[in-house]
Amino acid sequence: MTGPTTVDDLVAAVPTVDREAARRARDRWATLAMPPGALGRLGDLGVQLAGIAGVCPPPVAAAPAVVVCAGDHGVHGQGVTAWPQQVTAAMVEAVQQQDAAVTALAGVCGARVHVLDVGVIPGGAERRQHGQRPPVADTLPDAPGLHRARVRSGTRDLRVEDAMTPGECRAAVLAGADLARRLLADGVDLLVTGDLGIANTTASAALIAACTGRPAVDVTGRGAGLAPSGQAHKMAVVADAVDRVGERDALGVLAGLGGLEHAALVGVMLAGGAARVPVLLDGVVADAAALVACALAPPLRERLVAGHRSAEAGADVAMAHLDLEPLLDLRLRLGEGTGALLAVPVLQSAAAACSRMATLGDLGLGPE
Amino acid sequence: MTGPTTVDDLVAAVPTVDREAARRARDRWATLAMPPGALGRLGDLGVQLAGIAGVCPPPVAAAPAVVVCAGDHGVHGQGVTAWPQQVTAAMVEAVQQQDAAVTALAGVCGARVHVLDVGVIPGGAERRQHGQRPPVADTLPDAPGLHRARVRSGTRDLRVEDAMTPGECRAAVLAGADLARRLLADGVDLLVTGDLGIANTTASAALIAACTGRPAVDVTGRGAGLAPSGQAHKMAVVADAVDRVGERDALGVLAGLGGLEHAALVGVMLAGGAARVPVLLDGVVADAAALVACALAPPLRERLVAGHRSAEAGADVAMAHLDLEPLLDLRLRLGEGTGALLAVPVLQSAAAACSRMATLGDLGLGPE
Repeated sequence: MTGPTTVDDLVAAVPTVDREAARRARDRWATLAMPPGALGRLGDLGVQLAGIAGVCPPPVAAAPAVVVCAGDHGVHGQGVTAWPQQVTAAMVEAVQQQDAAVTALAGVCGARVHVLDVGVIPGGAERRQHGQRPPVADTLPDAPGLHRARVRSGTRDLRVEDAMTPGECRAAVLAGADLARRLLADGVDLLVTGDLGIANTTASAALIAACTGRPAVDVTGRGAGLAPSGQAHKMAVVADAVDRVGERDALGVLAGLGGLEHAALVGVMLAGGAARVPVLLDGVVADAAALVACALAPPLRERLVAGHRSAEAGADVAMAHLDLEPLLDLRLRLGEGTGALLAVPVLQSAAAACSRMATLGDLGLGPE
Repeated sequence: MTGPTTVDDLVAAVPTVDREAARRARDRWATLAMPPGALGRLGDLGVQLAGIAGVCPPPVAAAPAVVVCAGDHGVHGQGVTAWPQQVTAAMVEAVQQQDAAVTALAGVCGARVHVLDVGVIPGGAERRQHGQRPPVADTLPDAPGLHRARVRSGTRDLRVEDAMTPGECRAAVLAGADLARRLLADGVDLLVTGDLGIANTTASAALIAACTGRPAVDVTGRGAGLAPSGQAHKMAVVADAVDRVGERDALGVLAGLGGLEHAALVGVMLAGGAARVPVLLDGVVADAAALVACALAPPLRERLVAGHRSAEAGADVAMAHLDLEPLLDLRLRLGEGTGALLAVPVLQSAAAACSRMATLGDLGLGPE
């Protein structure tokens, strides 16, 4: 397959949504056999989906796929989480074995699950260092849906140095875009973001602070269950990192503070935007990546749908900055793509209603 | 099929949820490979579903069905809505033709759609009275999924007299229960409530006021788009009706104020509760029926799941009274079962995660 081979090419390929198709969808809703606006947010969503696809009524996604971008984080060494780093590799394996939350939820909505290892530390050694039984091999097993594109095994510690070099960062973006483009070529018509990476809420908070100008205290949450004292330490780490990086362009911020999985998610989003398919965001990790992706390619913003409200404080800040309102709030804070997968049927329902409902005219009806 | 043949039998057949199964589900969640509580409300939902089914992990619903109970309302003559009464019959026909919102959304989540005509006025005559072209035959057409159990063609005007006789009310409850029991015998494992009936938000408001003791002003909404002046009139109608009925038992309140579709929904809920399948509530019409059903059979309450928050004011009052919290709030106010259908995958996801996720022990993991 040929296609964009630089980040600049990816950015340039994202078109503005089709306002004429969106307008036709808005007009169409007004004629359907129901009180005006009675389908609530499904109405706005149908309009957005028409604009994204450039057709009205919008297609009902028939082949959703969740792309679980996985990476480890040098900032783990700062003690920002109670979970050992090798959980990332173990969870990648659990996804492959259909044992994870993301696979359980993907089965319900019919989404295929693809894991992109763009920066996982393979485990084993660190596991033994903690005196525990090594549950996984030193290299990740091959399995259907596992895509190997490891740029490096974990980022550097974002508190003290750039997490990625510019070259590593671009390579991770391109790895995400390349996988997304292969899935799209294979018929995938809805991209769902997922993530795996112990300590990635720290990197997310740093990205959100840097992209929005908000202080660390406003954007740093408890991640996977940190105690309040740990949260204060995590805030200090985030604040130091943001100070260290200072003013930069979006890719510079991403390289300085992001995870390899954030960079890969930026690539997934850009490729989905270019292909005119909706990109459904999961939680705070995707939200942080979306800030970077939309800074690079502003037309992308209207091509994103926020699936689920993350419990992390930074997520609300990112959503407000992007003027996105998550569809669901079921208090999930797991990641992996779980929240977004719950919203897949909502997108499909919006498109299906816009496509398949009769008009008031068809029924010979109208208000008196 | 044999089974309960009186409302008392239906009520007596609803068992308390299985607290031991619920406890096992709670224990199971605590062992799964994620931070404690990270699946948010899916965790509580999985516990509830285990208690409902009496097994842990709970089954993932494979055959959901939405039962759209349809009826007309004598109170329509009070001018409580801008929509002509024959819309009910026309929408029943639209559902049969797969042209309605409920059929579009049911297609997404794989639910079968069944319409129970328990009280529809067949149209035609009134349509001609308004000088419009009659779009539907004087009798509803036969079609797959249409179940005819018309107790009477529309209720009486609840402002001035009881909407139903006690016998009509019981017949409508039994009609709903009978259809639900036939669906359950056919393998349906999740019952979703739906409704069609022009003016049924007025009857819902009256039921909610009478069951909760709240004044009409707190529970009367704009229905299908009523102007504020119309809403004030609707409140007066509701207040008069509630005053007229006074203190009665739950079935007396239902006969005095409810629609035939409310009564049928009570029967659907009782039959689902007896069969230990979850009953997923749609909007304000179902919420009003649930108040009656739970007053009759208190163990039913823990067997109900609120799918979507209705925009009608009375819905919040009913939910608070029943201590239920809707899963979704996408600002739908259409009825038909649309809001609840969007929540079907959420129920399935909760059960799937509880069933299919690995434990931390399986992965050899745990927090440090």
